[in-house]
Parts: sequence; C-alpha cells; structure tokens
Amino acid sequence: MIIQLALDRFSIPEAIEIASGAEAEVEWIEVGTSLIKEFGVKSIYEIKNRFPNKTIIADVKTFDNAKYEFELCFNAGADIATVMGAAPMVTIETCLEVAKKYEKKVMIDLLNTGEDNRHTIQHLQDVIVCKHISKDQQEEGDRAVWDQEKIPSYQQLAVAGGISLTSLPELNKMNPDVLIVGSAISKAKDPGQAAKEIKEAWRKLK
Amino acid sequence: MIIQLALDRFSIPEAIEIASGAEAEVEWIEVGTSLIKEFGVKSIYEIKNRFPNKTIIADVKTFDNAKYEFELCFNAGADIATVMGAAPMVTIETCLEVAKKYEKKVMIDLLNTGEDNRHTIQHLQDVIVCKHISKDQQEEGDRAVWDQEKIPSYQQLAVAGGISLTSLPELNKMNPDVLIVGSAISKAKDPGQAAKEIKEAWRKLK
Repeated sequence: MIIQLALDRFSIPEAIEIASGAEAEVEWIEVGTSLIKEFGVKSIYEIKNRFPNKTIIADVKTFDNAKYEFELCFNAGADIATVMGAAPMVTIETCLEVAKKYEKKVMIDLLNTGEDNRHTIQHLQDVIVCKHISKDQQEEGDRAVWDQEKIPSYQQLAVAGGISLTSLPELNKMNPDVLIVGSAISKAKDPGQAAKEIKEAWRKLK
Repeated sequence: MIIQLALDRFSIPEAIEIASGAEAEVEWIEVGTSLIKEFGVKSIYEIKNRFPNKTIIADVKTFDNAKYEFELCFNAGADIATVMGAAPMVTIETCLEVAKKYEKKVMIDLLNTGEDNRHTIQHLQDVIVCKHISKDQQEEGDRAVWDQEKIPSYQQLAVAGGISLTSLPELNKMNPDVLIVGSAISKAKDPGQAAKEIKEAWRKLK
C-alpha cells in the first residue's frame, strides 16, 4: 500500500514544503515532469536531498535518449524513473538495462500506448506499470476511462489521474499497488491531513 | 531550405559555443530535450538571449500538461516547441491552441505515432511535422527506416536522425523543408565548416 505524492507545477521550495507536510503519510515522492522540465535535474537532487529516506520517482517521461536521461535521474538521486510505454521498445529496453546497472527501478507510463507495445510490455519482469489518465485528458475535456485490463502478477501496478477520496472506491477495483495522488494532497489546505484521509479511506477498502 | 542545429548532451555554455561557430550557416537552433531536462527552461532562455535573431526550437517533447509546458517554452523565448505525435490528441490540440495564442509554432514529432493519431495529424493546418529516427534507434541497434509517406502540402516537413553528408541524397528524396542536424555539426572539429558543407551539398541536390 503505497501512496506516491506527485509534485507538479510548483517551484522546488514549494514542492519541498508540500512534501514536508505530507511526509508521514506518503511512501513515495514524485518529482513531476513539470519540475524537471522547468528546473532540470536539480529538482530531483534537491528533493532527494531533503527526503533521503523516501523513494523518489523522477517522472522524466523518457521517449528517447534513454541512457542519458536515466543516468541523469539516477545520478541526481532518483530511485525510480519513468519511460513512456508509447516510446520505441528499444528505448524502454535501454531504460531497463540502465536501471538494472544502477539497481534502480523503471515505471512504464501506459498513457496512449499502442497494442503492439502493450503486448511486449506485458512480458517485462520486475517493472512498475502506470495506468494513467493524463492532466490534459482531465482538464481539456477528453473522455478517457480507466483501462481495466489485468496486469501480470510479476508487475506492480500504479494508477494516476486526478485521484481523490471520491475516486478511490472505483480505483480500488483495479487492486493497485501504488496510488499516485497529486492535487488532492498538494493543493489541499493541509496536505498532511489530506494524505492521511486518503490513506485511511484506502485502508478501509482493502 | 532550413538547417536546424540540434544541441543535445552539452552544458549550456558548450551548446552556445557550438552554435556560435555554426551561426552563419544554420537558420534554426534547437534546444535539445536533454538540455531542457538537465537544466530546465533556462537553457531555452539563455540560448534565445544569445541568438535573438534565430528561430529557437524547444524540443520539449510534450506528452501531457501541454498548456503549462508550452507556455514555459514560449515565455522562455522559444519560437517553436515540440509535442509527441504519440500523445493523446487532446494534448496536441492544446499545444496548437497555446501556440496560436502566442503566435508561435508547433512541431509534431512523429516518432512511434500510431495510425489513428497519424491520420488526425494529417489534417492539421500550419504545423511542422518531424519524421524522426530516434537516438536510441540509431545507437541501441533498432532497425528503423524512414517513413516515405507524403505529407500534405499545407504542412512543413522536418527530418531528424543521424543526418550527415552521406545521408543527404536519400533524405532529399523526401523533399524536406527542414533538415535537423545534430552531431554531424555539433561534434565536428569545426562546426561552422561542417554546417557549410552540409548546406552546400543540400543546395546541389535541390
């Protein structure tokens, strides 16, 4: 039962402040794509430096240049980095090789991944796959729905996309290992309290 | 006839030095994905600041959070920003809206784009589409080939992927508007001379 706090559209100090508030309730902390693209890998470095005992996810959304990008993330302190499932398979495979070498993990974001790649990804061992309804799908009026397909038992499942107290019961049907929560915690008046409520609600559903 | 110099896997000062050497021969300068992810949008800002009269491309490879990322790039001085053709269409459409508002342009990177999205992208007016053999496909042993499908007359075509003097004749058959060149210029002993030779060779083929 892992809650991953996603930090997006903040400055690095704001992100650190929010994560400090929710620290006791979340196991994993995600340095969001927007932080990496806005401030570079120092966002990963500073957040890992402040939370050395948390698992830090660099949501770098690699689509190419896998070795360079994954090494940047791992060298900056990330424990897990993300690659797009829609990328060429050679890129995903390269991410896996780099992660193995660094003894770190890969999260494969399944957003808009085609059938061919999905099929190949199903056979990958020891990865976290992320079912993801994107920000744009949520905010710009697309009608994405959760993909209910089962994932293999040798993979961990993360779910992301506007997750809040109200969406928990439906999401729990997918039996996720990792619940990626962004604004329901980060935009709450009291991020710690919000994280606690989500965690308790999730525990009751288990 | 546009040469776009792609700057990747360099520090910002190195990138500026290389671009200075090739300045007279290239029309467009690309702030590569690796610069954005390593150093953030200040890489765009510093390169535009040094080359205010060049068209600056931010290769931000947006896959989600289109409004935020494209505004970051345009506010940092980019004239063109990139979105992945493999992203949800709502993301690509949001990029187009933001670019229109800022009177800037969108380059759609067709790397690993599925049939559905390709079909929809074909109908988009006033965009640059980029046929792209990725770094990982070049370096990690995949066997990608150039997609020879014609693009509509109302779109501009850019081509990217290990382009050098030797690949020019084959590429020219696609009649590209923009030739994206990376290491054949940036890793040359004399980037200016290398850019000049590529430009002259391309001119002779025209």
